[in-house]
Amino acid sequence: MNFIKMQALGNDFILIDDSDEKIIENEIQIAKKVCNRKFGVGADGLVIVRESNYGHKKMIIINSDGSRANMCGNAIRCFAKYLYEIEFIKGNKLLIETGDGIKEVELYLKNNKVDLIKVKMGKVSFKGEDIPLKLKEELINEEILINNKLYKITSLLIGVPHTILINNNNEYTIDDGKIIEKHDLFLEGTNVNIVKIIDKGNIEVKTWERGAGATLACGTGCCASVATLNKFGLANNKVKVKTLGGNLEVNIINEEIYMIGGAEFICKGELLF
Amino acid sequence: MNFIKMQALGNDFILIDDSDEKIIENEIQIAKKVCNRKFGVGADGLVIVRESNYGHKKMIIINSDGSRANMCGNAIRCFAKYLYEIEFIKGNKLLIETGDGIKEVELYLKNNKVDLIKVKMGKVSFKGEDIPLKLKEELINEEILINNKLYKITSLLIGVPHTILINNNNEYTIDDGKIIEKHDLFLEGTNVNIVKIIDKGNIEVKTWERGAGATLACGTGCCASVATLNKFGLANNKVKVKTLGGNLEVNIINEEIYMIGGAEFICKGELLF
Repeated sequence: MNFIKMQALGNDFILIDDSDEKIIENEIQIAKKVCNRKFGVGADGLVIVRESNYGHKKMIIINSDGSRANMCGNAIRCFAKYLYEIEFIKGNKLLIETGDGIKEVELYLKNNKVDLIKVKMGKVSFKGEDIPLKLKEELINEEILINNKLYKITSLLIGVPHTILINNNNEYTIDDGKIIEKHDLFLEGTNVNIVKIIDKGNIEVKTWERGAGATLACGTGCCASVATLNKFGLANNKVKVKTLGGNLEVNIINEEIYMIGGAEFICKGELLF
Repeated sequence: MNFIKMQALGNDFILIDDSDEKIIENEIQIAKKVCNRKFGVGADGLVIVRESNYGHKKMIIINSDGSRANMCGNAIRCFAKYLYEIEFIKGNKLLIETGDGIKEVELYLKNNKVDLIKVKMGKVSFKGEDIPLKLKEELINEEILINNKLYKITSLLIGVPHTILINNNNEYTIDDGKIIEKHDLFLEGTNVNIVKIIDKGNIEVKTWERGAGATLACGTGCCASVATLNKFGLANNKVKVKTLGGNLEVNIINEEIYMIGGAEFICKGELLF
């Protein structure tokens, strides 16, 4: 079976074309096997390319533990670059079917290679019932005391729940994510972003991912961070986000969030097991 | 650049043929890049195949951090299988040049594929000056008290320093390795093996590797464990060793230690960066 390994902001994926649906029966076992970092090629997830009735192609994401992800900002950028450069899908506007609906993607080309990928991520919601929160209408700049430490937090939904801690006085570390993630306030847990504002157009984000812990970068976390700062008047509509895995740009146009970033090929090959 | 990824007992390597010495100038940068688990293919080390004046081929091992390893029991089994199946080196006896001298390797074939690989690992030494120990002639079944916990330890050299803790009453855990590894007794630190005796022909070994922490398996650790138990009359000359990464057999013939185990191909491909 042939594969391609790619990464976006250090979030790495094995891509397999399964247009003929040959592996649909055992895709979970294959994902666990190829993503295993010692006994397999090694990646955060397997991304399967299938035919779509609604878009150019359908993207299936199976995490290394065999669980399914509806959508992933870093995976879809890899997927879009793959479709253009490997599957030779024409044009710079793609419609990609995901578990979270059809996503509009725009490609920025350089020498007929995909340089940057812009993904329309949709709108955010600060409503407690959407996130979802327990017995709370919202959490916006709210002070909560956990283990005698005061946290000033804002929570929102952008596909998945995110909580923002503005960290301009270095009062928080990434390990605070561990404490917030599973707090009773969040019915389904929350991702946690430690955000440093450099200026209105530049921020730094470190994300603690629900179920995964500290990661190099999280696409939705960057979007959630910019949406929150923008709401507070602390950031522009166009913000450069620096993460441990690389840089991303987030644009807000008519309340819609757009994420613009790269994706890279690592290797192509054939599985031998 | 073409590569093959292999693993032995969960210790994984990227193999690159560099017979023409094209990458000799920047092999360390390449090792760091391809071994990176998020931005590269991902592996514990890069294994480079070069021509040898003394054996069939020369094996260069560069760890993922860029440091050089003279020899590795799991890497040499991968290397031997690779030479036979990919480079079509004839015969079932190979001489492989390593940083620790020429190693004699014997291949056990099944349907013209390499099923098992036997490596002559050499003799062990329990001498304090060889290991090396600080101001001690030897450490054999010696009781030492660290942080109010009593450890009964034996230390030896088999290419690298190893310490054995026999754990039949579950008095030790792998985390004890962390404490022993850097104890003042060991001038260059020590690997630590937590060993459970099932019977004289079967043992279980968990290894804390110097500089790397808890690993799935360590070839020299298995050999050191069997050599120690055999010295104490607690194990036969032929012992099956169970590790977290798989199984290995260790034979002692005229004080020479032989390690017999498998190696597996994962994928072959081409680097795209």
